[in-house]
Amino acid sequence: MSAPVQEVDATLVAERLTSALDAEQVCVEAIVLEDYSHDYGHVADPQVPLAVVFARDATDVQQVVLLAGELGFSVIARGAGTGVSGGVHATRNSVVLSLERMDAILEIRAEDETAVVQPGVINSDLNDAVAVHGLMYAPDPASHKISTIGGNIATNAGGLRCAKYGVTRDSVLALDVVLADGRLIHVGRNTFKGVAGYDLTSLFVGSEGTLGIVVAATLRLRYLSADQRSIVALFPDLEGAAAGVLAIGKARVQPAITEMLDSGTMQVLDSIHGTHLTDRGGAMLLIRTDGYGAAIEEEVIRKVLTELGAEVSASGDATAAELIEMRRNSRGDEQDDEFRAGEDIAVPRSQLVGYIHTLHEIADRHQVWVRVVCHAGDGNLHPTFWIDPREGQAGMKRLEAALDESVRAALDAGGTITGEHGVGQYKRRWLTWELEPDVLDLQYRIRGLLDPQGLLNPGKGI
Amino acid sequence: MSAPVQEVDATLVAERLTSALDAEQVCVEAIVLEDYSHDYGHVADPQVPLAVVFARDATDVQQVVLLAGELGFSVIARGAGTGVSGGVHATRNSVVLSLERMDAILEIRAEDETAVVQPGVINSDLNDAVAVHGLMYAPDPASHKISTIGGNIATNAGGLRCAKYGVTRDSVLALDVVLADGRLIHVGRNTFKGVAGYDLTSLFVGSEGTLGIVVAATLRLRYLSADQRSIVALFPDLEGAAAGVLAIGKARVQPAITEMLDSGTMQVLDSIHGTHLTDRGGAMLLIRTDGYGAAIEEEVIRKVLTELGAEVSASGDATAAELIEMRRNSRGDEQDDEFRAGEDIAVPRSQLVGYIHTLHEIADRHQVWVRVVCHAGDGNLHPTFWIDPREGQAGMKRLEAALDESVRAALDAGGTITGEHGVGQYKRRWLTWELEPDVLDLQYRIRGLLDPQGLLNPGKGI
Repeated sequence: MSAPVQEVDATLVAERLTSALDAEQVCVEAIVLEDYSHDYGHVADPQVPLAVVFARDATDVQQVVLLAGELGFSVIARGAGTGVSGGVHATRNSVVLSLERMDAILEIRAEDETAVVQPGVINSDLNDAVAVHGLMYAPDPASHKISTIGGNIATNAGGLRCAKYGVTRDSVLALDVVLADGRLIHVGRNTFKGVAGYDLTSLFVGSEGTLGIVVAATLRLRYLSADQRSIVALFPDLEGAAAGVLAIGKARVQPAITEMLDSGTMQVLDSIHGTHLTDRGGAMLLIRTDGYGAAIEEEVIRKVLTELGAEVSASGDATAAELIEMRRNSRGDEQDDEFRAGEDIAVPRSQLVGYIHTLHEIADRHQVWVRVVCHAGDGNLHPTFWIDPREGQAGMKRLEAALDESVRAALDAGGTITGEHGVGQYKRRWLTWELEPDVLDLQYRIRGLLDPQGLLNPGKGI
Repeated sequence: MSAPVQEVDATLVAERLTSALDAEQVCVEAIVLEDYSHDYGHVADPQVPLAVVFARDATDVQQVVLLAGELGFSVIARGAGTGVSGGVHATRNSVVLSLERMDAILEIRAEDETAVVQPGVINSDLNDAVAVHGLMYAPDPASHKISTIGGNIATNAGGLRCAKYGVTRDSVLALDVVLADGRLIHVGRNTFKGVAGYDLTSLFVGSEGTLGIVVAATLRLRYLSADQRSIVALFPDLEGAAAGVLAIGKARVQPAITEMLDSGTMQVLDSIHGTHLTDRGGAMLLIRTDGYGAAIEEEVIRKVLTELGAEVSASGDATAAELIEMRRNSRGDEQDDEFRAGEDIAVPRSQLVGYIHTLHEIADRHQVWVRVVCHAGDGNLHPTFWIDPREGQAGMKRLEAALDESVRAALDAGGTITGEHGVGQYKRRWLTWELEPDVLDLQYRIRGLLDPQGLLNPGKGI
């Protein structure tokens, strides 16, 4: 599963790629190699790829994979490179295979509520294209305006609307996949239901380019709601906000969006947007209802939260909608740097408050800062830990220790090390904390079955 | 993947099972062996098992699997035996491992909206237990009052509520699985979201006991709606009813239930219940809305269908609710016999009318009868073909030919050979029509990886 040990001849690789494809599809310019050498995740081991290849179709992908097997380089399939776990970081002897140019929406079947797309289609472009039919592609990672469907599939991406509409896996009906041996297979089906054979589609979704390379996907679409209601609720503290989340659940309302922000995150919003949220409370919920029940659900939520003592926005308040859109398109204040680390924990919903307290306790003890935003509807938290950059590497040991403890605490609370970002390169150190040895062994054996030479994205995922 | 060729010593098997477990857990009485030798599916090759074992816990299951490896018998894990594809039919040298007694609901975590159950829990028993918390377990196969959660998981069972709430796979978060080598593993997680490692949970769901034996499951629960609205709409013909299904979709309403019945099915209802449905139309829709939008959605649907010329029940009509409950609990008029065959096709929704016409054309040409009921919301059809039993085997060739053609036509329409019943033993003849050789090969290799000796339910599934 590790990268080929033998050093690969970069010149030969470039030559062979250039003769197999069009010359303009193969790039070895230093600046491009550097650009394509990493995603938005933390880079622990900087490497540059041997080449960057821009595929136009499935045949190109097959050619590259076949050459990889022959020459011994590894293949890192890549969408827009917006991942945050180092899932497409370059490794030694690797070629980055960009699927950005495979960006065609091949078919929209409005009556069937499905679409067939190439992997390079941008998530929000698909949403724009199907919106005219009153449909939406539900998974909406914060990167939806810049990330590709192929990347979303590779990480089984989530987003804000998951609690109601499911994650990427729940919207993928079928895939065309190029395997490590160059074969192109079609798994899944066109129908919403189907149980003929094992669910290989779900096996490929979330496999981070390690089991095969997705070259087309048949997606299930959902109904775009004409009516959307947005609510902002401010609470004195996180206990109040988390109680609000559970109270909405007990009222049996399933909002499309339920975001919980702590005061640290509210401070960031205040500083960027000139709002005064922190003057009004210590935690907040951003909630959106949709569908034909949107208005009724809005009223139920407003009532439930008001009874809990929250300051709830008036119905139709434009600020509420704006704040939610701001949140939907926000990936944090900027890219993580070496002094800041964003996390992606999920815990059972009942554990939200306790876990956030634990986070603050950990941060205090290690003298690092933390703020938290979460997709509270499904217990998916994004804590950000940081230190003062002036501390330099001196503070980093404390930051790393805090991170490790926060992950351990999530597992102790019945949670997972990654709700939606993927393991990539960055979270492999925690994977054995979550998966028992027999399960990890089984995963490696499945990987070995599909990619015995270890050509596909070695050192990532599992 | 085939059953062990060598004949196994039945006496030795019974002795060893009896000494490994309690004597009362092992049964070799002829009447019990016969009872447990098949499910509700068509029996092409009658066999009796060597023994029937009633497991009490995971350790029992491990013991049986280890003995199977040692002595060479195969293990057919079984819930209530209510499947209709022969997924638990006995094969040569097999032991039937009943999980019926593992029927404990281990935990209900109402705030987390999850439950942990043993595989022998009856689907509707779980629903009764969680209803007091305002929750439901959504997958509701027609057998929900008699089938087990373990069996539902084995077949990735569907039901009437799938279009809105998803199939079994969408409600399974984690599984405890005994592997063919006797190891007990835990796959999945407690949280709604999670992407650490490959999705082995989805691989086991729907694998019909061929990859491992599920001994516990963590399930996601959904909100039980306080408000439910039921609608009956009668149409002159199937075109009208199918147009109604698409019109509801275009109005962007997602009912919890959308059943379409043809006149043949309406005749059956009339004869059983003394209704006069066939006097009022040639096809009908049974629709249920739920959630906070139930009443609004009911009005939208009533308006849309009335405009299409349907005879739509009045709001609050008690008959509508009764008819839907009747349908929810109906598995057809009775068990299939040798002169009647029930099918389980799914096609893209836009193909519903065309496909049903093809079914009638096929039936006419082969001089057999057909009637159709479908979960129209997700394009899942259950045609029933039959002949006059007085024809005896003479008519069977025509029935089989009609069945084959109906399956081929479904695939031609972009559909699948089984929407929710599973492949079992009965549908393997069609599996190669749907899955391309490379995909089937990959499935066999995964099966071989998990069960190299071919101990688990040989001759079923793939």
